[in-house]
Amino acid sequence: MSGGESMPELFEPYPLELVHRLIEPGPTVMITTAGEEWPTVMTNGFNMPVRHDGLLAVVIGPWDTTYESLLRRRECVIAVPGKDLIETTVDVGNSSSADVNKWERFGLSPLSASIVGAPLIEECAANIECVVEDDSLVDEYDLWILRAEAAWRRSDYEAPEFHHRGNGTFSENGATRDLRDRMTRWRNLS
Amino acid sequence: MSGGESMPELFEPYPLELVHRLIEPGPTVMITTAGEEWPTVMTNGFNMPVRHDGLLAVVIGPWDTTYESLLRRRECVIAVPGKDLIETTVDVGNSSSADVNKWERFGLSPLSASIVGAPLIEECAANIECVVEDDSLVDEYDLWILRAEAAWRRSDYEAPEFHHRGNGTFSENGATRDLRDRMTRWRNLS
Repeated sequence: MSGGESMPELFEPYPLELVHRLIEPGPTVMITTAGEEWPTVMTNGFNMPVRHDGLLAVVIGPWDTTYESLLRRRECVIAVPGKDLIETTVDVGNSSSADVNKWERFGLSPLSASIVGAPLIEECAANIECVVEDDSLVDEYDLWILRAEAAWRRSDYEAPEFHHRGNGTFSENGATRDLRDRMTRWRNLS
Repeated sequence: MSGGESMPELFEPYPLELVHRLIEPGPTVMITTAGEEWPTVMTNGFNMPVRHDGLLAVVIGPWDTTYESLLRRRECVIAVPGKDLIETTVDVGNSSSADVNKWERFGLSPLSASIVGAPLIEECAANIECVVEDDSLVDEYDLWILRAEAAWRRSDYEAPEFHHRGNGTFSENGATRDLRDRMTRWRNLS
């Protein structure tokens, strides 16, 4: 069960062909699935876009409760937290949905998604509803190819993410550099 | 041919089991291969770690000269540029190694790698020598699984990267947040 409330107005639909912009900066994200007692939610730093059409890749292994749920339900939500959620995101990653209802513990609010059974996270800056597109590298590398089916972005969204340095420290975003006038070969990306 | 000079003292060997720390933050990187007339060099924003042992994934498609070279030679170098190279990195991504010697054009210096034929980039903050580990998803998704065989980091390395926002704008790193004391479940990552 998703167990979420309905979509509030603070989220706007976001085009699938731009979903790479939510992931390419390398954010630390949270990933939800529908779960049994409560929806699962985990923290993930191994993710990337695969195409500019909403195809994504994430690494999720059997050490995460999400893995079993993803195998069975074949859908999830990738939620991009803002800097205000950095401690929460770390704490979510350092506890297990098998032991605790992280939504209650960490004050996160599940919202019913539009397509998948996994919930969005209301407090996050963006949410991407995904289905499993290809699991042929899951056995060997825990690597999942996901396809975004719907995406939602807060109307006040602005470069919200932080980046795990792989050692419990994180880089927040600093200055934004606008180099769109140099994208002479890749006009479609500017 | 690699065509590079020998390794200068400013680079130190970096442990393969920590290579994920160079990539997990989601940096915009440059990727080199040995090439024909000159080594190829391209810009890449679709990359992630796959394991904490130097296994990485990148998306490189046939629209890049690198693709053909990677198919044939099965090795490359992933170079992580610092903020001082942000314009260069964008310009490298907006020209083709089929047309121009980017090393000369953009003032980059190839260095002979220790294992692979592709050159390191002297001006970059870190360089990862990689071989192709698995190409089973290349045909369908242009997704390459690479294995780091050696890595080099500048002695003055410090969170050097910038993050492509997918639209020709980039987020530089801002504040570093140290949350290592919250990594209670993942002590090995802190």
